[in-house]
Amino acid sequence: MPNFSTIYIKGLCILHFCSNFAAYYVFMNIMKRTEISTMGEFGLIEHLTRDLSSIQPSTQKSAGDDAAVMNYNLLPSAEKQRVLMTTDLLLEGVHFNLEYVPLKHLGYKAAVVNFSDIYAMNGTPTQITVSLGISARFSVEDIEELYAGIRLACERYKVDIVGGDTSASMTGLAISITCIGTAKDEDIVYRNGAKLNDLICVSGNLGTAYMGLQLLERERIALKGNYGVKQEIPAFEGREYLLERQLKPEARRDITEALRKAGIKPTAMMDVSDGLSSELMHICKQSATGCDIYEDKLPIDFKAAQLAEEMNLNIVTCALNGGEDYELLFTCDIHDYEKLIPIDDIYIIGHITEQSQGCRLIGRNGEVLNLQAQGWQAFK
Amino acid sequence: MPNFSTIYIKGLCILHFCSNFAAYYVFMNIMKRTEISTMGEFGLIEHLTRDLSSIQPSTQKSAGDDAAVMNYNLLPSAEKQRVLMTTDLLLEGVHFNLEYVPLKHLGYKAAVVNFSDIYAMNGTPTQITVSLGISARFSVEDIEELYAGIRLACERYKVDIVGGDTSASMTGLAISITCIGTAKDEDIVYRNGAKLNDLICVSGNLGTAYMGLQLLERERIALKGNYGVKQEIPAFEGREYLLERQLKPEARRDITEALRKAGIKPTAMMDVSDGLSSELMHICKQSATGCDIYEDKLPIDFKAAQLAEEMNLNIVTCALNGGEDYELLFTCDIHDYEKLIPIDDIYIIGHITEQSQGCRLIGRNGEVLNLQAQGWQAFK
Repeated sequence: MPNFSTIYIKGLCILHFCSNFAAYYVFMNIMKRTEISTMGEFGLIEHLTRDLSSIQPSTQKSAGDDAAVMNYNLLPSAEKQRVLMTTDLLLEGVHFNLEYVPLKHLGYKAAVVNFSDIYAMNGTPTQITVSLGISARFSVEDIEELYAGIRLACERYKVDIVGGDTSASMTGLAISITCIGTAKDEDIVYRNGAKLNDLICVSGNLGTAYMGLQLLERERIALKGNYGVKQEIPAFEGREYLLERQLKPEARRDITEALRKAGIKPTAMMDVSDGLSSELMHICKQSATGCDIYEDKLPIDFKAAQLAEEMNLNIVTCALNGGEDYELLFTCDIHDYEKLIPIDDIYIIGHITEQSQGCRLIGRNGEVLNLQAQGWQAFK
Repeated sequence: MPNFSTIYIKGLCILHFCSNFAAYYVFMNIMKRTEISTMGEFGLIEHLTRDLSSIQPSTQKSAGDDAAVMNYNLLPSAEKQRVLMTTDLLLEGVHFNLEYVPLKHLGYKAAVVNFSDIYAMNGTPTQITVSLGISARFSVEDIEELYAGIRLACERYKVDIVGGDTSASMTGLAISITCIGTAKDEDIVYRNGAKLNDLICVSGNLGTAYMGLQLLERERIALKGNYGVKQEIPAFEGREYLLERQLKPEARRDITEALRKAGIKPTAMMDVSDGLSSELMHICKQSATGCDIYEDKLPIDFKAAQLAEEMNLNIVTCALNGGEDYELLFTCDIHDYEKLIPIDDIYIIGHITEQSQGCRLIGRNGEVLNLQAQGWQAFK
C-alpha cells in the first residue's frame, strides 16, 4: 500500500497526496470500483439523485422530469422578486488537476463558485442543475465522491439540486453547474453603479487561493523527485489554510448578510474569481469611472506572504491577479463609512475616481501604477 | 481547392462534405482564421455577445454581470407562473462528430434540444445560458459559426441568451446549455399523470433522425474509400430530409399550441430524445401503469424505411430505439379522441394499461413483445 499523507481541511479529508499517484488509484480501485457502464446513464442519475430532498420551498418539482419546476410566488413580496441565473463550466486539465484536487473538494468548489456569483448580485442561491461528462477512468465511487461534495455545499448554503445531465466523455471530467437564485429588485447590486468618491471594499484576503495553488504545484513536483531529492510526503504543515482557500473556497454569504443588517447597499459588487485588478476594471468600465487603490491597504494573509517570499513571488502581484479567492469586491457610498467600520473582515482598499484618471494602484512609497487585467486567461 | 458537396438544409448550408476532410479545414482556415488566444476569454465573450438583444420582456439584465436577472412578474397571471429549468451537455466524440456535423447546425441543435424539454412540460422557453469549452484547433470564426446556430434557434423560438461561460478545453468541444422557461401551474404536464385507458400519442415520425445518422456515417466511410471504391461525393440526393432530422431537429412548439387550441391537456408528456421505448417506460414507471402500443400504428417516414431496407436494418427497431427525433410523446384522456383527430401530425399509437401488464408492443400479426429500454446508452 502506498504511503499516504492524510490531511483534513475543515472536515474534508485529503487523501490524494501520496508519493506514488498511480499506486493511489490502484489502491482506491482495489477498495471498490464499480464501472459506470454497469449502471448506464439513467441508472447513474437515479443513483446519484436517489435521496435528494428539497430545502427550498420554491422547489416544486425536482429531478426526474424533462425540466425542474420552481414556484417563486411563495416568497415574501413575490411581486418584487427577480430570478438570477449564472453558470460555470469546469474542465479537467484547464480548471483543475486531479493529481491533487480531491473529487469531493472539486464538487464542493464547483457548486460554491456559482453561489458566489449569486451573492455578488446581492441575491440568494436557491437551485442548481449539475451536468457531468465522465470518462471511463472514473468509477461510480469516484462520481459519488464528487457528488458528495456538491451535496455538502448545497446543504451548507441551502440550495436544491433540481436536475442535470450525465454523459460519457472521451477525455477527462467536465462539470457544468447552473445556479438560479432570487433577490428583490431593489436589493440587486449590479457592476455598473459605482460613482465618484465611493469607497472600494473587499472581504477576507487576496492572493491566498493562488498561493495555495503554488504550494500544491510545488509539492506535486517535489513528490515526483523533480527537485533532485525524492520527497515522501508533501510539506503542507502549518499551511493548511492556503490549501483550504484553493481547494475549498467559501462564498461570502456572511458579508452580504452583514451589509444588509448594517443598512448598507453596495453601489456595485462582484466576486473576485479572476483577480482583483481584472474585477475592479470591470466595475470601473461598466460604471464609467476610474479608481485608486492602495498597496498598503490590500488585505494579505501572513502565511501567504511568507510562502510568496519563500518562492520568490511578489505577494502584491499575487493579490492583484491571483484570482479564485471568491471574496466580494464592492463599492459603497462614502456616507456609509461609519456603518462599515464595525463589520468584521471587510477592508477599505481605495475609492472611485473620475474615468479619465484610469484604474490606479498607489504604492507604499506613493508611486502610481496603472492596473492591468492580467486575470486568468484560459486561452493563453 | 477540394471538391465540395454543398447541401442546403432549410437555409443552413452544409459545406462539410468533401472527399478530403483535412483539405476542407485547410481551405476554411486559409479563408480566415483568427486564433482565440488573440482575444482572450473576455474578448471572446464580448465578441460573441456584442449585439445580443432581448426578445423576452422577462429579461431584465442579460450577459455582462455576475448573473442574469429575470422578472417573471410581468407575465399575465403572474401568481400562477412557474419557472422551468433544464440542461444538456454535449461533448465532442460522444454526442457529435464534427466530420459531418457543421458547427452552425450543432449550435442550432444544442439550443433546440433544450427548448424541446421545456415544451415537453407544456411550457415556453424564455432564456438560456451557453457554456463552451473550446480546444485550440477551433478559431474565432468556428465559434462564431456555432454561436450563429444558437442565435438562429433563439430567434426562431423567441428565446434570449442571457449569459454563459467560455473556456479553453484540452480536448475537443464541450457545449453546455441551460434553459429556463415558464408555464402556468395548471398547464404543466409531468410524466407521472398517465392513467388507465389514456390514449398514447406521438407527433411527427420516429426513427428518422437515427436513419439520418446512419446515412451520414455510411457516407463518411464511403468518402474515405473504405468500401473498396473511393467515392467522390456523398450519396445524399433525395434524402435531405433524413439529414435534416439528424442535423437540424425542431422542437414541437406547434404541437403544444395545437393541443392548447383544441382544449386538450395531455395527462403525461415527454420528448423523444432517447427513443420511444425508453421514454414510454419512463412515463409508465412514473405513472404506475403499463402500455400497449401497436407496430402498425408507429409513424414511420417512407424514405427512412427505404434506407433501412437498403442498409438491412429493421425500421421498427429504429423507430422504437433510435432517439433524437425530438417529437412529443404524450398521453391524453380517451374522451379527447374527437378533439385530437383534426390535429395535423399527431398519431395515436396505443393506450395505457394496468401496471401488471407491463409495457408491450403488439406486432402486425398480433404477436406480443415486451418493450425494452435500449435507448441511448452513452456509457456502453
